[in-house]
Amino acid sequence: MATRNLLGGMEGGGTKFVCAVGHGPEDLLDEIRFPTTSPDETLGRALDFFEKHRPRLAAIGLAPFGPLDLNPASPSFGAITATPKPGWAGTNVLAAFRARFDLPLAFDLDVNAAAFGEYTWVPENRGLDSLVYYTIGTGIGAGIILGGQIVHGLTHPEAGHISLPHDRARDPFPGSCPFHGDCFEGLANGPAIGARWGQPADRLPDEHPAWELEAEYIAHAVANTILMLSPQRIVLGGGVMKRLHLFPLIRRRVREILNGYVASPVIAGDMEEYIVPPALGGRAGVLGALALGRRALEEAR
Amino acid sequence: MATRNLLGGMEGGGTKFVCAVGHGPEDLLDEIRFPTTSPDETLGRALDFFEKHRPRLAAIGLAPFGPLDLNPASPSFGAITATPKPGWAGTNVLAAFRARFDLPLAFDLDVNAAAFGEYTWVPENRGLDSLVYYTIGTGIGAGIILGGQIVHGLTHPEAGHISLPHDRARDPFPGSCPFHGDCFEGLANGPAIGARWGQPADRLPDEHPAWELEAEYIAHAVANTILMLSPQRIVLGGGVMKRLHLFPLIRRRVREILNGYVASPVIAGDMEEYIVPPALGGRAGVLGALALGRRALEEAR
Repeated sequence: MATRNLLGGMEGGGTKFVCAVGHGPEDLLDEIRFPTTSPDETLGRALDFFEKHRPRLAAIGLAPFGPLDLNPASPSFGAITATPKPGWAGTNVLAAFRARFDLPLAFDLDVNAAAFGEYTWVPENRGLDSLVYYTIGTGIGAGIILGGQIVHGLTHPEAGHISLPHDRARDPFPGSCPFHGDCFEGLANGPAIGARWGQPADRLPDEHPAWELEAEYIAHAVANTILMLSPQRIVLGGGVMKRLHLFPLIRRRVREILNGYVASPVIAGDMEEYIVPPALGGRAGVLGALALGRRALEEAR
Repeated sequence: MATRNLLGGMEGGGTKFVCAVGHGPEDLLDEIRFPTTSPDETLGRALDFFEKHRPRLAAIGLAPFGPLDLNPASPSFGAITATPKPGWAGTNVLAAFRARFDLPLAFDLDVNAAAFGEYTWVPENRGLDSLVYYTIGTGIGAGIILGGQIVHGLTHPEAGHISLPHDRARDPFPGSCPFHGDCFEGLANGPAIGARWGQPADRLPDEHPAWELEAEYIAHAVANTILMLSPQRIVLGGGVMKRLHLFPLIRRRVREILNGYVASPVIAGDMEEYIVPPALGGRAGVLGALALGRRALEEAR
């Protein structure tokens, strides 16, 4: 009989799902990626993937896109709630797995898993007490680790939707967010860049003025995060942040915005090790889900 | 010989100091208030107050104005750092007490103590996991409790200085903050209200348009706090918030800004028990310092 010690992780994004089994970043036994279609088809493929590994699986971490019901006392705990994504509102991801797997199951938001993945697996982050992970792509979200724990609060943070200064003389674009117009996501997500400049963000060259403006909004959000939480590291991931030339622009602007106010040698320095891309790249989410699975296993023992 | 079971608390504000001894809000044996003058004179008066109670004192919580060095590994741990207040930069408050009292001493920021005071002593807050306390007066600051703990991070939060939307067509006032101009504090502290309208805030009647604009900025800061942290309660204290007619204006505007995005019955409701004045009134800070003293005593045992 096989030893039951494999961890499973599922990152369920709005565009694609990534599932993996293994023990960590250097030790993945199997991995699969597929597009997000209907809930039945998508969750079916995920369940089938883990089914293959059933005899050795010890726990699974599930990290779908939100908003999620993360309240264990709620009747819809485990469900995706008010998403505009057709067919997905009300889908109970956790229940679908509970019906098939009698194992410790963890459940959290995709971006919380990404934050937890960077926090858990990246050697440079060991010993830190706090870390904030922003994903900046089609949507914008943040996972926040404080005191070594993922912050949940009343629901879960939605830091992608904070209000920021918006100088309409410099940038008349009204914002792309259907809820808030020119919130952070409305001003700075991938579709906002495309709509503002009339071409997809990934076609805009590095020297295009789009990026200076993009860095302006991201820097204000990062500076607000520093002022509100004073985290020990800020990781910026997601599709937009693949444009690595944004990092020096953001760091410079954060320094200008804070203007010497936060008395920390980390902030006073070049911030090259403070505002960073994800060390796990596109695998932060699925590896974070794996780490959540491991934590659920430890808690169950 | 007297029993050593008295707790001491000191709230050291930029304008006045409040010191008390006792066991809690309903059981204060002695209390003193005096203006903040030079460090020697002011700390001298505080030390003398506690000296009177020395035989029965078991612990003291110290909560001066910031910015503070809160890092126990730092050589200047316990000091007020880069304050513009003449004479106070570099004053080590904790060291002054260590030299006189061989007791468990707690040390934290005044607004953190106020948050901890509301969290610890107010029956309605019992069982909560998270609470944010804003003081809105001459300065603006926030104390954040998450997972029952005061958030510190890299230094300590400075949420009074976050960037907010500022519509210069509606409000041409450039902001009063010497570091950031039109940050939250620069737009919404007491001096900003006075400078914008040409008369002190406390002379402006409730129906003056100043308050609608004030509520606008506070509501954006509160909404950003909800989006970033999703806390279970938000307490708004300080001199400006003594104008209680601000509360309904703020709650209404927070609801408009969030626009149904945060899926929580608390946010969807009237928020009358969510965005609240401090139950301890002007004593939140000193009673929080007392609670910090009690915690230091428990940790020392």
